[in-house]
Amino acid sequence: MDVDDPRVGDWWRTSIIEMRPGVIRYRGYAIEELIGNVGFAQMIWLMTRGELPTQGQGRLLEAALVSAVDHGPQAPSIAVARMAATCGVGLNNAMASAVNVLGDVHGGAGEQAVSLYEDIAARQDAGASLQEAVRGGLEAAIARHGKFVAGFGHRFHPVDPRAPRLLALVDEAARAGVVGGRFAAIGRGVEAELAARRNGRRIPMNIDGATAVIYAELGFPAPLARGLFCLSRSVGILSHAWEQAGQGGRNKGPVPRGYLWTYDGPGPRELPPA
Amino acid sequence: MDVDDPRVGDWWRTSIIEMRPGVIRYRGYAIEELIGNVGFAQMIWLMTRGELPTQGQGRLLEAALVSAVDHGPQAPSIAVARMAATCGVGLNNAMASAVNVLGDVHGGAGEQAVSLYEDIAARQDAGASLQEAVRGGLEAAIARHGKFVAGFGHRFHPVDPRAPRLLALVDEAARAGVVGGRFAAIGRGVEAELAARRNGRRIPMNIDGATAVIYAELGFPAPLARGLFCLSRSVGILSHAWEQAGQGGRNKGPVPRGYLWTYDGPGPRELPPA
Amino acid sequence: MDVDDPRVGDWWRTSIIEMRPGVIRYRGYAIEELIGNVGFAQMIWLMTRGELPTQGQGRLLEAALVSAVDHGPQAPSIAVARMAATCGVGLNNAMASAVNVLGDVHGGAGEQAVSLYEDIAARQDAGASLQEAVRGGLEAAIARHGKFVAGFGHRFHPVDPRAPRLLALVDEAARAGVVGGRFAAIGRGVEAELAARRNGRRIPMNIDGATAVIYAELGFPAPLARGLFCLSRSVGILSHAWEQAGQGGRNKGPVPRGYLWTYDGPGPRELPPA
Amino acid sequence: MDVDDPRVGDWWRTSIIEMRPGVIRYRGYAIEELIGNVGFAQMIWLMTRGELPTQGQGRLLEAALVSAVDHGPQAPSIAVARMAATCGVGLNNAMASAVNVLGDVHGGAGEQAVSLYEDIAARQDAGASLQEAVRGGLEAAIARHGKFVAGFGHRFHPVDPRAPRLLALVDEAARAGVVGGRFAAIGRGVEAELAARRNGRRIPMNIDGATAVIYAELGFPAPLARGLFCLSRSVGILSHAWEQAGQGGRNKGPVPRGYLWTYDGPGPRELPPA
Repeated sequence: MDVDDPRVGDWWRTSIIEMRPGVIRYRGYAIEELIGNVGFAQMIWLMTRGELPTQGQGRLLEAALVSAVDHGPQAPSIAVARMAATCGVGLNNAMASAVNVLGDVHGGAGEQAVSLYEDIAARQDAGASLQEAVRGGLEAAIARHGKFVAGFGHRFHPVDPRAPRLLALVDEAARAGVVGGRFAAIGRGVEAELAARRNGRRIPMNIDGATAVIYAELGFPAPLARGLFCLSRSVGILSHAWEQAGQGGRNKGPVPRGYLWTYDGPGPRELPPA
Repeated sequence: MDVDDPRVGDWWRTSIIEMRPGVIRYRGYAIEELIGNVGFAQMIWLMTRGELPTQGQGRLLEAALVSAVDHGPQAPSIAVARMAATCGVGLNNAMASAVNVLGDVHGGAGEQAVSLYEDIAARQDAGASLQEAVRGGLEAAIARHGKFVAGFGHRFHPVDPRAPRLLALVDEAARAGVVGGRFAAIGRGVEAELAARRNGRRIPMNIDGATAVIYAELGFPAPLARGLFCLSRSVGILSHAWEQAGQGGRNKGPVPRGYLWTYDGPGPRELPPA
Repeated sequence: MDVDDPRVGDWWRTSIIEMRPGVIRYRGYAIEELIGNVGFAQMIWLMTRGELPTQGQGRLLEAALVSAVDHGPQAPSIAVARMAATCGVGLNNAMASAVNVLGDVHGGAGEQAVSLYEDIAARQDAGASLQEAVRGGLEAAIARHGKFVAGFGHRFHPVDPRAPRLLALVDEAARAGVVGGRFAAIGRGVEAELAARRNGRRIPMNIDGATAVIYAELGFPAPLARGLFCLSRSVGILSHAWEQAGQGGRNKGPVPRGYLWTYDGPGPRELPPA
Repeated sequence: MDVDDPRVGDWWRTSIIEMRPGVIRYRGYAIEELIGNVGFAQMIWLMTRGELPTQGQGRLLEAALVSAVDHGPQAPSIAVARMAATCGVGLNNAMASAVNVLGDVHGGAGEQAVSLYEDIAARQDAGASLQEAVRGGLEAAIARHGKFVAGFGHRFHPVDPRAPRLLALVDEAARAGVVGGRFAAIGRGVEAELAARRNGRRIPMNIDGATAVIYAELGFPAPLARGLFCLSRSVGILSHAWEQAGQGGRNKGPVPRGYLWTYDGPGPRELPPA
């Protein structure tokens, strides 16, 4: 085995954290300076982006993080957390099993919506009008992901109460010069186009579409929208796992004992002769 | 940074696998010799134990592995796998979220039962009769884990159809000299003692108690009983995740849409003044 | 199958979230009220505890959450996140694999330290002096978890720069009447006792000991200390997974290619005859 | 809440397992018949495919499962398992964190190779010669996944010792009429075409390419190739987690203490004024 290669310490390389005995710096800032002076949402920004946000940017990020913490035990992520809590694993494990299911379908809508908005913005930059850009972006998104446009419509809420509130905060921040407001206009443009295609029946922006407006306004790359959603939803996941642990229960399945499931496979049969 | 320390290659040390370009040996055996000559259950034994089992030992391990693959979507592990499959994650991720919940309560009964049997055996070695040893072991287990004795009783099956079949195979293997039969006697001793304590009403050995007899007979340390259960149940987990993926569904929660959940928290209230 | 049982909707019961079409309330508060008015740390408190914190309580929680986000790629949680990011899984999956390893040893020190402090407080309540209570609590903790006292000492930092800063914030909050200050005294009492046992050589409080002071002052039950650590460390986990994804790399192992590992198992050998 | 819907029991539907008190049937076969009569590899086939394999099919599947169990601590999956084992989590959790990283890059090569082979076969069915079909299939795969063709070439082994052995077993099975042999020819055709493109320098089939030949010959759909790899690698994952647990160690990072990592972020800096 060749152990002379001096590159071992380079195998792991980061610009996030510098450490020496007694010294911890994140992105150049000493940890003891950050503690007590910087909020949790600002810290999330610093760690993922490399610089501190302004107070206004931090508040907008905070609003998005607050908005997505939980959608109840009907959401697979929450149900998984609660089941896990009855199986004899730690809170960290229950959280892991649950965060893990925030995949393309369950946790990826915000990421897809940011991508859609960015695509529309790029079409505008190339000279298209807002409406043209929205139409082009929507066509591309539908071709790629199917007819459900990520960020719009909700199978439970006729109007998602989180979306208008988040958009109002974006408008306020735009008036204060904290953000440009371009992606709020794009998001509303998508909503208008979707309604136009259904003879005026609205498919209103949902939480994923609204947080995506915020993330795009704040300059987060699309994949981080999913990462931020995972941080946010982790709060609800932890809370439900903890509540379920307090309720007791052992090996709690999805439905009460008597219900079992429907079996539609082959009827009883014998093994073939060996 | 000090990169002169020649110990980097020692940081990871294993007696499981030796590798050089073009050479892979597990526990000393070349992989190309193992492939085609050794069954999957034998390979599991070699990897976890360090030596190959005899054919008889391998067959008994195989029976235990076959017996625990699945207990339907009422089991949290299977429900988690199926939910995960509707959330837009890979089969590996669905399997991970599900295997992860095989904790002390859901996946640990076999481990606890092996520990119980080992404790009883140690009491016999120290001079106790089977009945004395069983009583002492049971008292200790109940003091430690509570009144549910791992490996005995089932909330669904009056008699678990897997247990008598597995015990019959152990008896057969004992007659053939493959195993000693001591732990089969201990397991039955526990069953008899539990019945005696309930005026003859049986709390029959379940699959965890029966596979634990096999694992103890074969000399597996108790924690590996959980590991082997994880390998076995992974088969059902994969199968259900795959079946669910084929059925479609998006973000499938535990119960149908209309059911939601019971909310028993505070009624509507206003935020306190800032 | 019996489908007449009207209890299905009760199978999942929560006091965290109430939902109807168009309505989402957490602990009684409408989501649109919370968004923009309540910070992320306050929301974490509301979700896990049931009531909103005061501003001062919220700030102290926020300081603890900021302090624990990251300890570099030497920490298994961070290394796992970075490796996972090179294996072709989503950010949610990389986060899950990493949060999952925040077990008793890696993520449980804060929980154990809160338990220790609570035990000492209970001894005081029963009439012991601080010193007597500390000694009794320490003996019990060492008997249970071994000689490493969770929350004190660090294998890398002679003095953990996060701990004194966090304690200073607790002192400040105690002076302002936000917290009682009892657990800061207990934590310092443990530190003093540990030094006394080593002829004055300090084993200074580390981040786990200091955040545990905060969590105990704020009334969080011990297991939530681990949950909160998971939320905090998730930020670093996400940041490193994201940074690693940007660096590229495929199937990145722990050390560079040439190093492999030390094999100390059996030498080459032949399969026994079938 | 509407609890009158009689469809709750239909929410979970499966053709894998039928259960009544005292009765467990997989795909119609009683569990007590399967135990002792059917091997673990055959059981994996039954569970994922719905029917039992012939003995010859079962043996070929078994060879593939045996071949992929482990590739040492340089593989992220194995390193993750070993790290996890030092963090105070259960074997199930260590296995979960590790299986979870078997994503598109780490665990998906077999799946991609099966897809490639199937695509080539479809081109043959449409009238192309083997060489034409191979060329067309390769072009499409490279366009989709980049220049690394899944299943061919190895960054460590000049010749992967597992691949020729597996192919020899396929040839043997083809001569015995167990499989058709078509995908072995396709795999070799890909190997020949890749060599021709590099002036005769071989990029030999690796384990993923060879197991993919087996899975394609046996009729497994491509995504199950990843699932089966997860089952196989779980054996190595468990074995290494268990070995590491026996070696001790706490919070074991990727490299020894002195090495840390290279920091290339901003130098020390002060917080901006609040």
